[in-house]
Amino acid sequence: MTSGTHAIWQQDLLQALALNQAKPESKYVQLATVNTLGLPEVRTVVFRGFIENTCKIVIHTDQRSGKVEHLQAQTDIEICWYFAESREQFRIAAKAELVDQDNADQRNLRSEHWSQLSDAAKSSYFWPQPGQVLGLNQPEFEQQVNVAPETRNHISEHFSLVILDPYKVDHLQLTSPYHQRKIFELHGDDWRHRQINP
Amino acid sequence: MTSGTHAIWQQDLLQALALNQAKPESKYVQLATVNTLGLPEVRTVVFRGFIENTCKIVIHTDQRSGKVEHLQAQTDIEICWYFAESREQFRIAAKAELVDQDNADQRNLRSEHWSQLSDAAKSSYFWPQPGQVLGLNQPEFEQQVNVAPETRNHISEHFSLVILDPYKVDHLQLTSPYHQRKIFELHGDDWRHRQINP
Repeated sequence: MTSGTHAIWQQDLLQALALNQAKPESKYVQLATVNTLGLPEVRTVVFRGFIENTCKIVIHTDQRSGKVEHLQAQTDIEICWYFAESREQFRIAAKAELVDQDNADQRNLRSEHWSQLSDAAKSSYFWPQPGQVLGLNQPEFEQQVNVAPETRNHISEHFSLVILDPYKVDHLQLTSPYHQRKIFELHGDDWRHRQINP
Repeated sequence: MTSGTHAIWQQDLLQALALNQAKPESKYVQLATVNTLGLPEVRTVVFRGFIENTCKIVIHTDQRSGKVEHLQAQTDIEICWYFAESREQFRIAAKAELVDQDNADQRNLRSEHWSQLSDAAKSSYFWPQPGQVLGLNQPEFEQQVNVAPETRNHISEHFSLVILDPYKVDHLQLTSPYHQRKIFELHGDDWRHRQINP
């Protein structure tokens, strides 16, 4: 089931999150996209929770970042989530939906996520264009990144959500004496799973 | 420079490895490939060191794993290396070269890597085909993965190296009050770098 109840793999993932909650980096996942040349790119992003009563995953992005261009051309992504404490990995293939300032359907969700950000995180969305050559000297840059509180009260036009709608999950557990691996696949509204050789 | 001395970004990476050496997972990196449908895939792999006097990175793979097929069709990959302790990330774009049992040039390197594996790791290369449905019951599987020492003395035909030859490195440091980001790019034999907006 994808709504109303947790998807079956989601129970495993919630358990892993609980087991690893002492480590802040357990909420860091690697997001792989394909760039416009057809080449793979991968970077660390922060898991921002599920959309209530679904297994859809929310992350944040700056609308000016490279991955936005990738997602606009190719909505299929994969995330890799490794939990060091419990020694297990989830690979989650999903369709990505971008929620930018023009998205009317998810206006409330975007506001809600903005309001939960720290002041430092809010400020980063007012910084100069990511990826451009740092054209300022240190004091100039520090001045520019020091965003006034009244500015931060408004959602930055650069702040976007990415909603990931999973369709395949590969759960690997590095247990001893041999590893265990399960594949979950969405068929219509049903998640089916099978155990495979690790 | 790419040989004889360390590439300039490699100094930063070696420093990060030293700073984070207390955590075994600091040698785990996420490898992104493009599959034969043109979609991104990403999984955790273990950093097995550099090739001496170069910045080429070695990882191991089972020749039967999905990523081998990806690398045969598309040799461009990217790895993401996040260091939780020092809060920094390296994204390394590289060309991948597969070293399987038929590779004559790197025969010694492959033997050397095999000899350094633990018995458990060696055994895993004699396991049944990864990714196939687990067709055995628990006792049958345990019997099959319990590989005899005389078998492990020979290099498994499934054991391959992947040598990654970097051409672009993106080093992000999550420093306060603002992040720092540098891009290193290979031009001929020279690495050039610039500081960019984070």
